[in-house]
Amino acid sequence: MKNKNYLIIFIFITMPLFLFAVLSFSAKNANSANESAPPYNAKIPNAVSGPFSRYFNPHALPNKAIIKYFPYQWLDAYLNTEHNTAVKISKKAPAWMRKGVGWKFPEARAWPLHYGNPYGIKIYGFRGAAPTQTQYMGNALGVSVANGIVYAESDDNFIYALNAKTGRLIWRNSPVENNLMGIPLVYHGLVFVSAGSVGFNFFQLVRYKEGKTPIRGAHISFNGIFALDALNGKLAWQRLTYGEQMASPAIHKGILFYATGNSKVYAVNALTGKTVWVSHVRGVDNMSNPAYYKGRIFVSFAFPNHLYCLNAATGRLIWQTTIPGATNTGMGDVSPAVSRGIIVMDAVAYPKIINDKKTVQTILAAFSSGSGKILWIKKEGRGLMPPAFKGSVPMIHNGIVYSGNPANSTYQARNLYTGKLLWLWKIPNPGPAGAGRGNPTYYNGRLYISQSKYIYVLNPKNGKLIGKAYVGGRMGIVNPVIIGGTVYLSNSWDWIVAKPLRSIIITKHK
Amino acid sequence: MKNKNYLIIFIFITMPLFLFAVLSFSAKNANSANESAPPYNAKIPNAVSGPFSRYFNPHALPNKAIIKYFPYQWLDAYLNTEHNTAVKISKKAPAWMRKGVGWKFPEARAWPLHYGNPYGIKIYGFRGAAPTQTQYMGNALGVSVANGIVYAESDDNFIYALNAKTGRLIWRNSPVENNLMGIPLVYHGLVFVSAGSVGFNFFQLVRYKEGKTPIRGAHISFNGIFALDALNGKLAWQRLTYGEQMASPAIHKGILFYATGNSKVYAVNALTGKTVWVSHVRGVDNMSNPAYYKGRIFVSFAFPNHLYCLNAATGRLIWQTTIPGATNTGMGDVSPAVSRGIIVMDAVAYPKIINDKKTVQTILAAFSSGSGKILWIKKEGRGLMPPAFKGSVPMIHNGIVYSGNPANSTYQARNLYTGKLLWLWKIPNPGPAGAGRGNPTYYNGRLYISQSKYIYVLNPKNGKLIGKAYVGGRMGIVNPVIIGGTVYLSNSWDWIVAKPLRSIIITKHK
Repeated sequence: MKNKNYLIIFIFITMPLFLFAVLSFSAKNANSANESAPPYNAKIPNAVSGPFSRYFNPHALPNKAIIKYFPYQWLDAYLNTEHNTAVKISKKAPAWMRKGVGWKFPEARAWPLHYGNPYGIKIYGFRGAAPTQTQYMGNALGVSVANGIVYAESDDNFIYALNAKTGRLIWRNSPVENNLMGIPLVYHGLVFVSAGSVGFNFFQLVRYKEGKTPIRGAHISFNGIFALDALNGKLAWQRLTYGEQMASPAIHKGILFYATGNSKVYAVNALTGKTVWVSHVRGVDNMSNPAYYKGRIFVSFAFPNHLYCLNAATGRLIWQTTIPGATNTGMGDVSPAVSRGIIVMDAVAYPKIINDKKTVQTILAAFSSGSGKILWIKKEGRGLMPPAFKGSVPMIHNGIVYSGNPANSTYQARNLYTGKLLWLWKIPNPGPAGAGRGNPTYYNGRLYISQSKYIYVLNPKNGKLIGKAYVGGRMGIVNPVIIGGTVYLSNSWDWIVAKPLRSIIITKHK
Repeated sequence: MKNKNYLIIFIFITMPLFLFAVLSFSAKNANSANESAPPYNAKIPNAVSGPFSRYFNPHALPNKAIIKYFPYQWLDAYLNTEHNTAVKISKKAPAWMRKGVGWKFPEARAWPLHYGNPYGIKIYGFRGAAPTQTQYMGNALGVSVANGIVYAESDDNFIYALNAKTGRLIWRNSPVENNLMGIPLVYHGLVFVSAGSVGFNFFQLVRYKEGKTPIRGAHISFNGIFALDALNGKLAWQRLTYGEQMASPAIHKGILFYATGNSKVYAVNALTGKTVWVSHVRGVDNMSNPAYYKGRIFVSFAFPNHLYCLNAATGRLIWQTTIPGATNTGMGDVSPAVSRGIIVMDAVAYPKIINDKKTVQTILAAFSSGSGKILWIKKEGRGLMPPAFKGSVPMIHNGIVYSGNPANSTYQARNLYTGKLLWLWKIPNPGPAGAGRGNPTYYNGRLYISQSKYIYVLNPKNGKLIGKAYVGGRMGIVNPVIIGGTVYLSNSWDWIVAKPLRSIIITKHK
């Protein structure tokens, strides 16, 4: 009897230790998904003060009382599958959120915003220098905002977390030597970053010449997905990928989906990085983010140009389709938008040499999310083959598709169901590299577009320009992120900018 | 009369101002060679504290009294055209220089030296991960040492200047977002750095498929030559190049020579960056440094594989030749060594699939520097096609050629005049990527080789191993730099290391 009691006491005491051991073991197993322990810079004397070491300033963290007025997560690069990055805020939100704030934050390779030319214009020309600066020194896409913090990935190799009110740096980290071209996702206290280079190594030239699909990014540094603590930037887990991981992932119910430069689509547990499934398709995903929509994943590849529909639970291929005539990196560069069972995306197509210059026709297409059947196809206009990112990110709001066309530097509005053109707006002074890449944002009856050096405001009903504001630098594929009274932007010239909406001068009111 | 005196006084007073104005104007003109003013990070608020901003600690500068015992300049990546990086020092030099010093400096992407595997081994395998880490995170080549300062370029995007005695960081700068793969040259108070990536953009895949010469590095960030103040790291001038600038330049009498990934050879004024001449050859210079020798420049390209001899004063082509059978990036990766009118270089050649694996024969060839005539050609042995840098850097000392062969992981000694094999040494445990890339160093009757994790000491007369010392990490194309009693090394795992020669355990004495 006494012995039995001792046994019970013994079990009672040791149980927590046992559970702790089991949990530690599970955690260790979860980490086995990580490619290269020890984590970068671990146990290196002095590396804590090195230039790539994590910077963290807890004093810059947002006031806890205001966090609830912000989105608490960010599960698609463009907030939702409609790609409309606008958030209305509560009337109880503090005045600064409602009225908007303004600040500018220079990132690590910041280039003067008011300077006329991009870096390296003499050697590459504007059409070459501007996208190269984007791909290697600045922000390729826009930002995400959650819990009072603005997150931005830069091709300067860093991810930044700034206080949304003050623009002060909370943390900065560089988990790997590579360009970070995506938009950070936020989920359950973690931030997800994708790393990938646009480059190919020499072996891929040989493969391409032999008629094989080239693998982008392989052996061009280390590509992958990195999960960091959202509040302090500490590395939680990492998963390297063989091909580049330029595109952003998508998250649904704790599963992180991403597509690579070597024909793969992955689903992993967002909290641990452990594999749920891996699916092998064909081609190269460049900048096409997967979209999660009603149990399915839609993701687009080039070489060959294909849009794939996979079962989100199993990775099984449901259907695949293409945009007729799509060329070059066309479909692999564009993120499909989905709304009301309709997928919309564009691609450069039908290349033709005109006056010794390569031109393309940009095609906008709508597909049934159920069957993949083409619902309509529209020509958006022919123009010079755009350098680098070749398409535009479409946005859908209330049954209308808003999409740019960098070949002819326009934005166009169409009926979601029929593709009928509602209006076309020509971007003023788009610059030699063309403009019309980033998704517009619909907010409070106005359409916001950030392109080249300006934010433009259009009347979404007729496409008339009703206002603009100067930002400077260059915005390529950058979408305006609107949270209450503030628009948050990043810039190819390596800046993060906040602007109060009320500072944008409205010249006409309709 | 009085007026005349006033005029003289007026001229006397204004002359210095006038001269100052003229000189300022000249300086401005000299700067017009620079591609992208304003200099990077200029006038950016906060950027002075950013991670890529210049770091400078004047307290770490070397004691002025010891500077004279060091080389005062470093004009060839490997100190001289024989590629023997050893410097005997005066007996009056301080005891620490004669006895040698030991320290380790972790650079910005340092990876634990004693850790078993390189970064990313699970995704790329060792043969892929090891060279990728070298090309993107660590030191590709060795160091240079001048005026008491050790200079190293790293693919972590930084150039470092360390105190040769203490290993303390004097300055660090990152003039451009790119990999720095060369060895810094030192001349007249300036340090010269070359920036270039191994990558190709998609356009080059298309060009290569069409049978055209691919341009390496174009639009894969910004490539070029950067001149920095040797004592504090401030940018003096920069010249971007269209193709990559991975290879180091060479300097002779104030003229800096460099070759690019887009078929060009440049001669510029080292102090101002102003063009002296530009010569257009064919192909891609990868890691082949030009050699200046008796009024001529010898430099080697791939696609096609050719060794060129140019007039150093005019850039005019004198002769061109090739190594029969040379394949892939072969000749473009190897820096020719020159001694006594004989040029020696190697290249991978005659690819052959054996048991489903690509193999190559490494060919070592000697040419007359006068006529380009082949003096002799020798097979160094067949083995697996080496990943990344495919040849080895030959070294010549006293009429003997010492050269490695990463295809079969050996070092070989041959008679400079006949090519006759004197001995062959097999590198113990070369690792899955092969070894035998870096040039050996001859010093005080011993041959030093730094490969994989070790420094090896051989008897140069018979190729017998007589000693070794553990360094850790991985040394790929790294050559031991010996200054008196110390050997200075850099490492693929992003470290700079000093070791006293006397700490190397000598097991046999002949």
